[in-house]
Amino acid sequence: MYTLLEAQNLVEKHIQNISIPDTPTELYEPVKYVLSIGGKRIRPALVILACDLFAGSVDSALVPAVAIEVFHNFTLLHDDIMDRSEVRRGQPTVHVKYGENVAILSGDVMSILASRLINHSPGVVLNVVHEVFTKTAMQVCEGQQMDMNFEDLLTVSEEEYMTMIQLKTAVLIAASLKIGAILGGGSQTDANDLYDFGLNLGMAFQLQDDLLDTFGDQQTIGKMLGTDIVDNKKTFLMIKALEKGSPQQRKNLTDWLAKRDFKREEKVAEVTGIFKQLKIKEITNQRIKVFYKKSLESLAKLNRPEERKVELSNFASFLINRNK
Amino acid sequence: MYTLLEAQNLVEKHIQNISIPDTPTELYEPVKYVLSIGGKRIRPALVILACDLFAGSVDSALVPAVAIEVFHNFTLLHDDIMDRSEVRRGQPTVHVKYGENVAILSGDVMSILASRLINHSPGVVLNVVHEVFTKTAMQVCEGQQMDMNFEDLLTVSEEEYMTMIQLKTAVLIAASLKIGAILGGGSQTDANDLYDFGLNLGMAFQLQDDLLDTFGDQQTIGKMLGTDIVDNKKTFLMIKALEKGSPQQRKNLTDWLAKRDFKREEKVAEVTGIFKQLKIKEITNQRIKVFYKKSLESLAKLNRPEERKVELSNFASFLINRNK
Repeated sequence: MYTLLEAQNLVEKHIQNISIPDTPTELYEPVKYVLSIGGKRIRPALVILACDLFAGSVDSALVPAVAIEVFHNFTLLHDDIMDRSEVRRGQPTVHVKYGENVAILSGDVMSILASRLINHSPGVVLNVVHEVFTKTAMQVCEGQQMDMNFEDLLTVSEEEYMTMIQLKTAVLIAASLKIGAILGGGSQTDANDLYDFGLNLGMAFQLQDDLLDTFGDQQTIGKMLGTDIVDNKKTFLMIKALEKGSPQQRKNLTDWLAKRDFKREEKVAEVTGIFKQLKIKEITNQRIKVFYKKSLESLAKLNRPEERKVELSNFASFLINRNK
Repeated sequence: MYTLLEAQNLVEKHIQNISIPDTPTELYEPVKYVLSIGGKRIRPALVILACDLFAGSVDSALVPAVAIEVFHNFTLLHDDIMDRSEVRRGQPTVHVKYGENVAILSGDVMSILASRLINHSPGVVLNVVHEVFTKTAMQVCEGQQMDMNFEDLLTVSEEEYMTMIQLKTAVLIAASLKIGAILGGGSQTDANDLYDFGLNLGMAFQLQDDLLDTFGDQQTIGKMLGTDIVDNKKTFLMIKALEKGSPQQRKNLTDWLAKRDFKREEKVAEVTGIFKQLKIKEITNQRIKVFYKKSLESLAKLNRPEERKVELSNFASFLINRNK
């Protein structure tokens, strides 16, 4: 049985070995660059763990697992263009390093490469795996569109926010597990239970991300706190604060959202202060626990020996307890 | 047996009927827009004709045929961003109408949708169709990258140019025919012969495009002549002129390529004048005929009754004789 770390290492090795054409250099060098600068390889590792859960041949899951990682990195690449982000994983983003046109096109070819790698799934499940993959991939685009729409909205409801993070983040984690289950020979019910496990975990994961951006330890997470606040991101924290705040607190928040000229530290301190007054951290932590609990319920329903599920429950606990 | 026109109409009807999600509106409205403003539906019609050639069930080829058209339109959408084109088929391009971020993301979702529609190929050939499709799709990106690279090069060899148009244009026409053949139940040899037919035809098609841009009839093609000349495109015409010209003619051409300030009409007239002195039109026409002849040889090799091939040979003749 694979541990999460073993699965991550296996995937990492395989990513470095996939055959990516050399020419045109301008097109494929950025693809290699993006795949070389790391990331935790969580999603492909989940494909492996889910496959292994059914004692399926992990070998047959390796290429589809890499496909998911390639797809995930494609979304980051294009999101970075749309969000004008200049740094990713401590390195310059592709459009900064190679120019915007190259970034668009390299992303395009990565998306197609991902689909091509999915085609390495065994014939008997290819159709199902491919449908889960492409359906999910479209949903991720929908989530990114919603996220962009939020930038122009003054208020976003909690429900809209939850739909957005479900599409942008949670469905790909869920689909990774489902695809792993299908490749491992799990039943449809098993695959769906794992999907639900991943979906709720993905929600918890994103809320934890929102939380760390404001309340994390700067040393540990290795970047400035409060980026979301500075960027006026409609995170769960901000949405809850706008919902729970007194008229005065809400006015202060909307004033900060509207302000064009400000000192970064001052804005972060003031908004974080209001969050603290409203116990937003505690509210968010509580919500994370609800999703975590739901995810464990789906895992419990899964018809596999408990000792086989240990890695996945460890992973869930790691995700919501992480501090970076 | 389907005629080209019948195949085009069938495809058109089906394109308007494919189910595209409604929300987020910002994401999917541009997709519907792009698919609604037409085009000749040549590629999907070729899928249908190739399938029909083997008396295969055209019904089973319809969705994959639409997939190819969706993919083709995705490439146009993203190419227009990269090329900063403002008009396509007489309508504003997506990035002009909806903004660049939306254009990137709508293109992304179209590419995935295309792959999802390919998954509707019958299970027994799914793997093969999917591999042809994704391999080809990657090649199209490679062609676009080469085309972008040419912008920054002073000279492009004929060989480089031929590779570029093969990747950017010809392989998708070839793959449309090959996929149709596979869906129709043709043998591998048949499918490859049709691929070669399409590849050579695609080359002829692109050279004809280059020719019409300079030597077409302005009334008939419905746009200004000489766009390629104004944009310093390294077309076959320009490459041949730079190769065949006297030192003085070459100097004149490179001067025009370097000039930043010029009157459009003057540049077009002068460069076209040099092309005429060098008989570039005749040279290009001759090259078109070579590709046309090669394409017909592949069609002749194809092990099908001659009367079944008529639509494809008509199509080939139409393509190289078209005046718009």
